[in-house]
Amino acid sequence: MELSARNSLAGTVKAVKLGEVMAEVIIQVGENEIVAVITRSSAERLKLSVGDRVFAVVKATEVMVAK
Amino acid sequence: MELSARNSLAGTVKAVKLGEVMAEVIIQVGENEIVAVITRSSAERLKLSVGDRVFAVVKATEVMVAK
Amino acid sequence: MELSARNSLAGTVKAVKLGEVMAEVIIQVGENEIVAVITRSSAERLKLSVGDRVFAVVKATEVMVAK
Amino acid sequence: MELSARNSLAGTVKAVKLGEVMAEVIIQVGENEIVAVITRSSAERLKLSVGDRVFAVVKATEVMVAK
Amino acid sequence: MELSARNSLAGTVKAVKLGEVMAEVIIQVGENEIVAVITRSSAERLKLSVGDRVFAVVKATEVMVAK
Amino acid sequence: MELSARNSLAGTVKAVKLGEVMAEVIIQVGENEIVAVITRSSAERLKLSVGDRVFAVVKATEVMVAK
Repeated sequence: MELSARNSLAGTVKAVKLGEVMAEVIIQVGENEIVAVITRSSAERLKLSVGDRVFAVVKATEVMVAK
Repeated sequence: MELSARNSLAGTVKAVKLGEVMAEVIIQVGENEIVAVITRSSAERLKLSVGDRVFAVVKATEVMVAK
Repeated sequence: MELSARNSLAGTVKAVKLGEVMAEVIIQVGENEIVAVITRSSAERLKLSVGDRVFAVVKATEVMVAK
Repeated sequence: MELSARNSLAGTVKAVKLGEVMAEVIIQVGENEIVAVITRSSAERLKLSVGDRVFAVVKATEVMVAK
Repeated sequence: MELSARNSLAGTVKAVKLGEVMAEVIIQVGENEIVAVITRSSAERLKLSVGDRVFAVVKATEVMVAK
Repeated sequence: MELSARNSLAGTVKAVKLGEVMAEVIIQVGENEIVAVITRSSAERLKLSVGDRVFAVVKATEVMVAK
């Protein structure tokens, strides 16, 4: 199965912070830190924990450019 | 001026493809390629062209995690 | 590999309309028609064509409720 | 009044979970479960509760395709 | 019918530019210009044209803050 | 540095509500109230507080039109 989303960055989970409804996941991607906000239940379903190898996935229409 | 968006990845424009309304911008960020879809008029306003040093900017709520 | 995005609806491609940069994909999901706008290059990479069995995938933060 | 958002799926609220800022709403749409994350204050303003007939509304640019 | 999206700004259509798949709609809201990118077919379904009284609608999770 | 996001509305912070992971920021823009949902850590990094002069920033692809 392949996804249309164009951006998929391999990294390692550095931190997971659970709220009641949402969760913040910090992913180290090379020299950059990527922050993802997903539902708490998705974080639990994926059993996300520090050190996991994951991908940060972003649809191209969600990316802005600053110059 | 600082923006709330948490993800800002420094890179270099590799390609700009202009449609009538939208534009696709490919940015090399380290070993990764990031694709941004913005309006054609924004691409023109920023005068985006190959070789430009730019940032790919993404709001944290737009990032998904795959494991 | 599993994705954090919570919504994944199985359906069949009914139409693909290609623009220069973007593509519109219409997916029949049960009695509903779902419209996805992705990049043309993603539509081509996935070789989307009428009759394909696909999933429409949506991050939960992108869903609104009308009552 | 009509909205440009192309996707509007009729369903029934199955669960509402309130956090401090956000709320998660699970909507049964035919055989599928759709999860929406909206603000808690919107959930309260709409008085969303189990059994309500609602629509899950999604802008076409937010829909990805997996094949 | 009421929508969970929190932001709804009354304005007047100043310009509509149609691409093959997408359309750009410029809306005058008080002293500000708001740009919306929707599908061409939505622009046609709503028969958007210059001078129309419309609302620009944005989900709260899509709004960033710059300071 | 300039951002591709097309919509930037000057206003004043009216309220900040902090959850564990997310924060809701209400911004008075002329006669309209704009609600932004950002991460709590962004709200803290920007030291957002009532009375601050800020901009509400929205990517054009996130704006819908109602007529």
